Amino acid sequence: MNETSHILDANMMPGQLLARGVCRHMATQGFVCIEEFTPAKGLRVDVIALGQKGELWVIECKSSKADFQTDKKWEGYLEWCDRYFWAVDMDFPTDLLPEGTGLMIGDSYAAEIICMAPESKLAPARRKVIIQKFAMNAARRLHALRDPMARVWG
Amino acid sequence: MNETSHILDANMMPGQLLARGVCRHMATQGFVCIEEFTPAKGLRVDVIALGQKGELWVIECKSSKADFQTDKKWEGYLEWCDRYFWAVDMDFPTDLLPEGTGLMIGDSYAAEIICMAPESKLAPARRKVIIQKFAMNAARRLHALRDPMARVWG
Repeated sequence: MNETSHILDANMMPGQLLARGVCRHMATQGFVCIEEFTPAKGLRVDVIALGQKGELWVIECKSSKADFQTDKKWEGYLEWCDRYFWAVDMDFPTDLLPEGTGLMIGDSYAAEIICMAPESKLAPARRKVIIQKFAMNAARRLHALRDPMARVWG
Repeated sequence: MNETSHILDANMMPGQLLARGVCRHMATQGFVCIEEFTPAKGLRVDVIALGQKGELWVIECKSSKADFQTDKKWEGYLEWCDRYFWAVDMDFPTDLLPEGTGLMIGDSYAAEIICMAPESKLAPARRKVIIQKFAMNAARRLHALRDPMARVWG
């Protein structure tokens, strides 16, 4: 690790560090990810991953038992993805996690799929809407980073 | 302008500066853009813009007459967008530009549509492919910027 990465780490919350490891893992599987993505009003998923065939996975990153237990929204995410995963660290009591969901274990550097989530395929019209939104969101954030002077999206 | 923007400008080619102005303009119109996008092998467009309804526009940025005259590939871009534009600066001899294409005039800070390009709608299957590619490309670049240590895409 160099100095820059220490600084970045220090500014990130535990859940964000876990998300970073998840995104790194997904990239090795040919997926691309966006963090803190809003599929619909009032919902914000920690990580959404898009595969080369248009597969959409949602991964919620839980840094602690309390973080998991206060999440009242996760069931609302199921209808916005083909597969739904939890990502937790090594110390998380995974027995708490509900059936019918996938599991990744990771840290800020990497993650691994421990249990593949069952597939519940999105309808084509919804997949189209999410991929369109994904594309716009990623390009808008990219534009903001590479041309911060633009600042046109308020 | 602050010092950072001077440094950025100095490292950019004239066509890239024009592309920056084009992307800023498109953002004000609710589009998001990627620069140097490859819709298909062997083709690379200067700017591709994606609208909220999935509209896809291609904008080729020409910094000089010579830059335009050496472009042998532009006709190959027409089948990858709904509308095709040239973007040039104020001094460009616009009489040279072919009929049936749109025109933007701009600089590194902004651009304006002078002549709307005719619409030639993409087939739904092709639009789907391009938006998927757009989404993956934008997210991959975004990931590389926000987590440079990941470096998983070689």
